[in-house]
This record gives sequence, structure tokens and C-alpha cells, in this order.
Amino acid sequence: MPPGETPADPSRSWPADATLADVGEFEVIEALTALFAQGEHVEVGPGDDAAVLWSDDDQILVSTDLMVQDRHFRRDWCSAEDVGHRAAAQNLSDLNAMGGRAHSLTLGIAAPAHLPLAWLLELGRGFAEECALAGASVVGGDLTRAEELVVAVTVLGTCRIDPVLRSGAEPGDVLALAGRQGWAAAGLAVLSRGFRSPRAMVEAYRRPEPPYAAGPRAADAGATSLVDVSDGLLADLGHVAAASGVAIDVRREALAVPEGLRAVAAAMGGDPLDFVLTGGDDHSLAATFPAHVDLPEGWTAIGTVGAGSGVTVDGTPHEGAAGWTHF
Amino acid sequence: MPPGETPADPSRSWPADATLADVGEFEVIEALTALFAQGEHVEVGPGDDAAVLWSDDDQILVSTDLMVQDRHFRRDWCSAEDVGHRAAAQNLSDLNAMGGRAHSLTLGIAAPAHLPLAWLLELGRGFAEECALAGASVVGGDLTRAEELVVAVTVLGTCRIDPVLRSGAEPGDVLALAGRQGWAAAGLAVLSRGFRSPRAMVEAYRRPEPPYAAGPRAADAGATSLVDVSDGLLADLGHVAAASGVAIDVRREALAVPEGLRAVAAAMGGDPLDFVLTGGDDHSLAATFPAHVDLPEGWTAIGTVGAGSGVTVDGTPHEGAAGWTHF
Repeated sequence: MPPGETPADPSRSWPADATLADVGEFEVIEALTALFAQGEHVEVGPGDDAAVLWSDDDQILVSTDLMVQDRHFRRDWCSAEDVGHRAAAQNLSDLNAMGGRAHSLTLGIAAPAHLPLAWLLELGRGFAEECALAGASVVGGDLTRAEELVVAVTVLGTCRIDPVLRSGAEPGDVLALAGRQGWAAAGLAVLSRGFRSPRAMVEAYRRPEPPYAAGPRAADAGATSLVDVSDGLLADLGHVAAASGVAIDVRREALAVPEGLRAVAAAMGGDPLDFVLTGGDDHSLAATFPAHVDLPEGWTAIGTVGAGSGVTVDGTPHEGAAGWTHF
Repeated sequence: MPPGETPADPSRSWPADATLADVGEFEVIEALTALFAQGEHVEVGPGDDAAVLWSDDDQILVSTDLMVQDRHFRRDWCSAEDVGHRAAAQNLSDLNAMGGRAHSLTLGIAAPAHLPLAWLLELGRGFAEECALAGASVVGGDLTRAEELVVAVTVLGTCRIDPVLRSGAEPGDVLALAGRQGWAAAGLAVLSRGFRSPRAMVEAYRRPEPPYAAGPRAADAGATSLVDVSDGLLADLGHVAAASGVAIDVRREALAVPEGLRAVAAAMGGDPLDFVLTGGDDHSLAATFPAHVDLPEGWTAIGTVGAGSGVTVDGTPHEGAAGWTHF
């Protein structure tokens, strides 16, 4: 579709329960790509052997992430639109965590033949909406058949200034956090016990709201390290501590614990701070700043960087898991 | 790993039959990324939230493709190294088909917990080798657990001149082909009947040899359209005919039919040209050139472009399937 054109309704000619097998590969791709409006930087969007993009920067940021049904999402817990939002958010957040901005994404889908077209198009709509929030276009993709639903996303973007790595934290820096943290983990805990409230926590799991402005702002302000919290706050701070060769201490009392988190923890007999310390699905950002820097908008100091190694909470190693791993 | 360093043997500390679950996510990723030497254009390779690349061109080509076990490859027909080569080749070929050159790839893997680490590392080795053939680096990736093995690749590159699309063919142009065509389809036919020879055809299926120099050469020579043959020669020419608004005629006698193809067809009682006309796994290239152009090295004229629509063989519609679809 040429840049700027409005997508037509792609599902108009199919019954509501048509599956991918009913519709066929090429028509599914056509219906899906019709959802993806192309930004001005896109010379050739979906449909040729490759997409062709213009960049005003000679630096390219690229990251890729997979999501697997029943591992990263459950179709009875999330709508297709939620899954689309989450798949895009997870990748957009990776560029946010370099201080960058995304301009383009590709969307690869391996899907069972019996998947309804309507479900896939809803996923596409959610994906496109989340990309639009970050100002990025869906420029290409792939669709293939599989037994299990897998969503494979790659995101491209740029930094206006030098990207902020995990390896630059220095003793004396301030540790800061941007975005909601622990909400999605609490929402997931609620859903996995068969409940649907507190609604704010469940919605935070279904549709994270990564702080897309916070990454570039941190870079502009001179952040020394930056990471997105996708494995769990303590686990990801562990990556920063290891890459930077420093010790990081989180101050418990500096962490925001909203009423919804308290309610979930009370219902389950746990500590609400555990969600904050080990949750990953919010795609918040953690950064370190030199002590003299005024923290930019959206950032809150939550700890300190010192000499040494490892991550502590109020000076003590945290008991229990720091996050989760895939194998 | 810094650019230019030689990767250490990453599997040294694990028993030969260790599975991904035995080794754990982070050590698997470490072992895998140790295989990927980084080119000079890579500022930050695998290990941070995103890779950071330098490009000397303001145009970016990007394409993505998925491969699913038992659909795109079978582990009893192909070695892990073959699968790695094929996954890279399929994506590198997409940029070749724009007249471009790849510089960077990402490798996403969804894999069962019981997959042997050794198998995955062999895949990584094959992938890296194929990327090196095209002068490209593996700059990032993702690893997650799934029931089914899925390999999701994204390739980035540039064109020195304007990319060649599917939509530029004009009546009067010459149709030309570069690379082996039909060999892999014959090899697949052999394997699916439980045989292992002719070896050249089977090897062509296991490890395609896309003509990576042919795409940029065609662009330099002024090709009006360019496509890689991944769905089948007639099917992909159909995409060109539709995108360009032209008719394409393939001349049967111009198509190379090597002895191995004849042998496979004879053993199966079919026409060897069917492999050439409908095979897709060789990742050959088809292009159209203005009639006055001397075809560049590696290209052979196989037909003509006329006014009208659709694809014919010696003036007649081909009977039977033009290629294959995923749903």
C-alpha cells in the first residue's frame, strides 16, 4: 500500500469464522498487510522480496523477540489485540532501552491452519496500534503454517545520540526507574489463579504501557546505563551490574507499591514488593545516572551504584528468584 | 564479542548429549553467540537490548522469514548445519532479489527443551558460515522455549543503487534466470521417497547455493524487475507479471535440465522440466532486462515479456501447480 493511503476493511468478504486454511496464504497476507499504514520513510513496504526504508541516521538499532502461545501468552487470558500490542511493545521497548526510537518493524507469524482469520487480523490491528504509539511502521513480515502459534518480531530504529548500553554504570551513580513495575506480574498472578481483578493489574499484564519517551530522555540526560525490565527488575539489574562491573543496591522504600499490588499480595498472602522486584512484563526501564544529574521527567531514584558486584535490596541479597528463564 | 576476535569453542564444558534444558537459557545463548564473529560495521553485537550497526547508506533493505521443523525441514533429511545454511540462505536471497547485499542478520529460535545443545550449535555454525559467504554478520537474536522448532530470521542490507522491484518488467524485455533451478525440488522428491541419490540433487536441497553475486550484477546491468524463486519459478514469475502488469512467456528449450534432474524424473515417471518450472528451494533469481542489454555474468535468457497478463510456457498455460502455498 502506498504511504498515506487508508487501509480498506480486509475481512469484508469472509465469514466471521473463516480459518487461515479457508482463506489461503496470499489472501491472509493481503488482509493483514492492509492494516499496516506506511510512514514517510518507507519507500517499499510489504509485498516485494524486501522492504526498502530511508533512514536519516547512519546508525541502525535492531532487536528481535519471539512470543510463543501458552508460554508468553494464553488466548483465554488475552485478546488477539492484546497479544498484538504485547508483541510490539516487547520489541519497541528494546530500542527504548538503548535510548533509541523505532521506525520500522517486521512481523513473522507461524500459525495453525485452524486459527480464525478474524483472530489474526485483530492481532495485526493491536500490533499496528502499538507501533503507531511509538511512531513506527510495520514494513514487512512472513506467514507460515505451524502446529503452535509463534509471533516473531524484529524492530529497527535509530538513536539521535550515542546508544546507552548496559555496561556504563559507575560507582556513585544513582539508580532510577521509569514506568509501571510489578503491575503486569501481579496481573499474571491474578489470571493464573482464575481471577479477573484488580482490573488495573490484569489490564497492565494484557496491555503493557512501556514508557516510550523515557529512554530517549534518559539518553539526553546523560544516563550511564539503560536496560528494559523484561526478565525481572533484579535479574535485569544483575545484567547491568555484571556488564558494568559494579554493585547495585535497590532501596525498598523508594519503590512505588500501588493499592492494586497490595490487594493482590494480600489475597495471595505474599509481599507486594516481590512483584516489583521480580516482575518483567511491564517493560519499564531502569537506568543509572551520574549523581549530579537532575533526573528527567518520568524517572524516579530507587537506589545506588557502588563498587563491587551483584544486586542487593537495602544492602542484602534478595531471597527467592530474581526473575525467570526460558529453559 | 569484539569485532575480529576468534570465537572459542563454546561447547567444551558440556556432555555431548546435553539438552537446552540441561544447559539453561543464558549459557545456551552465550555458546551460540560465541559462534558469531562481528563485522567492522557492528558497534554493539549480541548481548545488549539491541544491536547497534553502522551503515554507509541511508537506504535500508529488510526482510524476514520463518522456518518450521517438519514443514520447511526435517531433521532426518538435513543436518543441523544444513538447516542453519538454509535458514540464512533463504533470507540472504531476499536481499539478493532486490539487487542488494546483506550486512546483518538476527536469528530467533523457538526450540523444545529436549533439543540437544550440540544440534543447536551446529545450526548456529551453518548459519554463521552461510552469512559469511554473503559477507554478513549475525548481530542479535532471541531464544525461547516452544513445543516445535521454529527459526525466525531477519536480514538487513543495502543497495548501492536503486533496488529492483517486482513491478518494473515491460513488454519487450528479456526474461533471464541465474542459479540452479529445480535441483532442490528434485532432491526433495528423492528424499520424500526414502532415497538418497542422485547426491547432487539431494545436496542441492540440503544446502542451496543462491547466486549471491547475481542480484547486484542484475541491478548494475539495468534489470527492470527481479525476484527470487522461493514459491516456484512459474508462481514467482506470476508475482512479477501481476506486479508489472505484463505477460511472461518461458521458453522450455532454454531451461537447463542437468542429467541428475533427468534421472530423478525418469525414476519417478515424470517430466524433469516440472522440477524446473515449479521448484522453489534453490533460491535462484529471475529477472527481466531491456532487450538491448548484454546479460551479466551468470544470467541466461529463458523467455520474453509481452503485453497482457499471466505466465505461459511456450505460449501455453502450464498444467498443474505453479508452486506451493503455506495454507
